[in-house]
Amino acid sequence: MHVDIGNALASEVSPGVSRAALERLDDQVADAHERIERGMANAEHGYEALNLPERTDPDEISAAVEPVADSEALITVGIGGSALGAATITDALAAESDTEAVYLDNVDPEWVSNHLEGLPLEETAINVVSRSGTTAETLANFLVVRDAFESAGVDWTERTIVTTGESGPLRDLANRHDLPSLKVPDGVPGRFSALSAVGMVAAAVCGHDLEALLAGAAAERETLTGSLFDCPAYAYGATAYALDQRGAGINAMVPYAESLETFAEWFAQLWAESLGKDDLGQTPVRALGVTDQHSQLQLYRAGPRDKLVTFVSPGETDDRPIPDTDVEDLAYLGDATLGELLEAEFEATEASLAAAGRPNVRLELEAVDEYELGGLLYGMEAACVLAGELYGVNTFEQPAVEWAKKATRGLLGGGDFEEADAVAEKTELRVER
Amino acid sequence: MHVDIGNALASEVSPGVSRAALERLDDQVADAHERIERGMANAEHGYEALNLPERTDPDEISAAVEPVADSEALITVGIGGSALGAATITDALAAESDTEAVYLDNVDPEWVSNHLEGLPLEETAINVVSRSGTTAETLANFLVVRDAFESAGVDWTERTIVTTGESGPLRDLANRHDLPSLKVPDGVPGRFSALSAVGMVAAAVCGHDLEALLAGAAAERETLTGSLFDCPAYAYGATAYALDQRGAGINAMVPYAESLETFAEWFAQLWAESLGKDDLGQTPVRALGVTDQHSQLQLYRAGPRDKLVTFVSPGETDDRPIPDTDVEDLAYLGDATLGELLEAEFEATEASLAAAGRPNVRLELEAVDEYELGGLLYGMEAACVLAGELYGVNTFEQPAVEWAKKATRGLLGGGDFEEADAVAEKTELRVER
Repeated sequence: MHVDIGNALASEVSPGVSRAALERLDDQVADAHERIERGMANAEHGYEALNLPERTDPDEISAAVEPVADSEALITVGIGGSALGAATITDALAAESDTEAVYLDNVDPEWVSNHLEGLPLEETAINVVSRSGTTAETLANFLVVRDAFESAGVDWTERTIVTTGESGPLRDLANRHDLPSLKVPDGVPGRFSALSAVGMVAAAVCGHDLEALLAGAAAERETLTGSLFDCPAYAYGATAYALDQRGAGINAMVPYAESLETFAEWFAQLWAESLGKDDLGQTPVRALGVTDQHSQLQLYRAGPRDKLVTFVSPGETDDRPIPDTDVEDLAYLGDATLGELLEAEFEATEASLAAAGRPNVRLELEAVDEYELGGLLYGMEAACVLAGELYGVNTFEQPAVEWAKKATRGLLGGGDFEEADAVAEKTELRVER
Repeated sequence: MHVDIGNALASEVSPGVSRAALERLDDQVADAHERIERGMANAEHGYEALNLPERTDPDEISAAVEPVADSEALITVGIGGSALGAATITDALAAESDTEAVYLDNVDPEWVSNHLEGLPLEETAINVVSRSGTTAETLANFLVVRDAFESAGVDWTERTIVTTGESGPLRDLANRHDLPSLKVPDGVPGRFSALSAVGMVAAAVCGHDLEALLAGAAAERETLTGSLFDCPAYAYGATAYALDQRGAGINAMVPYAESLETFAEWFAQLWAESLGKDDLGQTPVRALGVTDQHSQLQLYRAGPRDKLVTFVSPGETDDRPIPDTDVEDLAYLGDATLGELLEAEFEATEASLAAAGRPNVRLELEAVDEYELGGLLYGMEAACVLAGELYGVNTFEQPAVEWAKKATRGLLGGGDFEEADAVAEKTELRVER
């Protein structure tokens, strides 16, 4: 991953960060880097995520998925960090795989049923992922999926891989049925686990190159030094932080490749759940080039000056010529390819924001492949950890989600929780049709 | 559509709006409503969109699509407002249709090729939509699609419906090949055109009930009165505006149904492109319940107090029981259905934000069907028009997107534009791996 922060400089845009301010910030980056290195060296909670390129054993994952490695489809049952990392990888590389990767990361009944109806269950593998083994949505969906396999006369125990913690209901289940199983690594929060078994089982079933994913991440890890001017990940994290301090409380992630749409969702979780606390944190917005030029660009260019736009340039891709046309006004299209049009629109949009004085940053990949993707995921995680140090928040916890979990459980009769009582006390001001 | 703004009141949340402030704001709403009614009566640019329930002729649309009404698939070639309204309708109602609806709203070459490879072209219809007939992405994709049909030996002229303006290259094409064609209505910006031929051709090909869509919209139109306390659409628009004034510059749209995910994208265009100007406008964020509870909820509940969260409750849906489990800790799930779990999570999440003093609003549908969807789309458009009046912006223009269009054209050799020259002058500050 390369990063270009030229369009975030105060000489170009507002809000922007001056070179002098970046240099001052670099002292804080150096201190934060020391903290991060120490956390990594001591395998501290959260920091351990940045050790995954060395810790993850690709052979162990490949061996576990071997019984289902030739499946026509793979259902991953997980939610949040237990789904998004895996989905980011398999969606980015979908064109290279014959396995259809499906993610049951919601409990919408109609949608779950539609997914299950369309799949050849006798050729479908199940990948169930939950650290605790008690995540309500994941366990509910797993019970539904298991039942659907049984109803279709397919032995789910022959087709299921479990990724979970050392103990809990899913671990017990794996032991009882002798299922291939992998461990969610200790000290690695879900949203930082893409480069562990949590994110890589699906990639393995889909036939992607796990070693290249890890090698790309390891190369990015090598760039973690004490200066934002030498490290793309830190350059990004520090610039995003500095712009937020100066009023850019929104961070719009805009990949210029459909294959990276899920990456933007993954980034949104990483950024929101890690930094969104203590009344701090940038709000991530997921967008897509070129599509959202016709939806969000007006706002980004002429709305409030509260945004950083982060572009992802995918590098080399397959291309397709635009056929000639006899319409004079459109002749210029016939001289181009779709890829050239996409690239021109990217450059034009980036320049259009800069010309309006709106800050933007470019993340550059050489291509969308395992190596580059490993680097991108690792780089964004390191950027996020750095930003968390600069904000001074606890990057690796997410305490604010507990309230709703308890209330849900209480509402469904799974115990007494005062949160459930609060639900009934809602203040209404209804306006009816 | 019903609206509940109880959790936006200053007595409950911060930022919030007091009942007294809402009553004062209602005077402005009354004035704005007069302006809107006048605009509608005079068929003024933009306001004309709110007349669509009476103006759109469903029989004309049904007649136009008749030659391809039994297609296995439909490719809609359009972008922005020429795709999102149609996609919102067919995605919401996909479970009721046997026609696969595909939207080519991006020029990513690999993605376009993948879409075309999977379709049975001899049973596929083409729906090309562009008011000007010169939209670069749409015309490029249309040339590609046409070529793919020709290469497969399928006569595209037998399978194409054109929706465009009174003149331009697409109108000429429709005339030359005698294609069934419909007119983009005058005075209706693309993002407000879902309830015209622009949004309804795809619905018609997919077999949905156009009259029910329009009837739902007409019922919502009946609620447009001079008071936010009597009109769900105005209640929503006025509350969103009032919260933005008080610091909620972000509006997170969170439907609790996968079928409404595209609705959130449609809303994001409507809100961003209409209100995002003069350094004003809320930034729409697209999210999804329950999935994003495991991604964005931490930020929404504990991050900066700069957000309104808008929930959409889908009402009655198909349900699916959760099979029993012998795991004691999970027994409560076996007593519930997926739908009950979804509903409990929605109520819990809504209450969790209120308990943390974070403003949220609930939009309620009775069900996800044509009638309710028509009401929802119309209601949000009316809310947006009202908000535009309150902000005092020109709701119906989008001047900030022109710069990048000119630059793109210049970069591709389609003419001399100074914007293209500016692209080459980019300031770089690159950090390389």
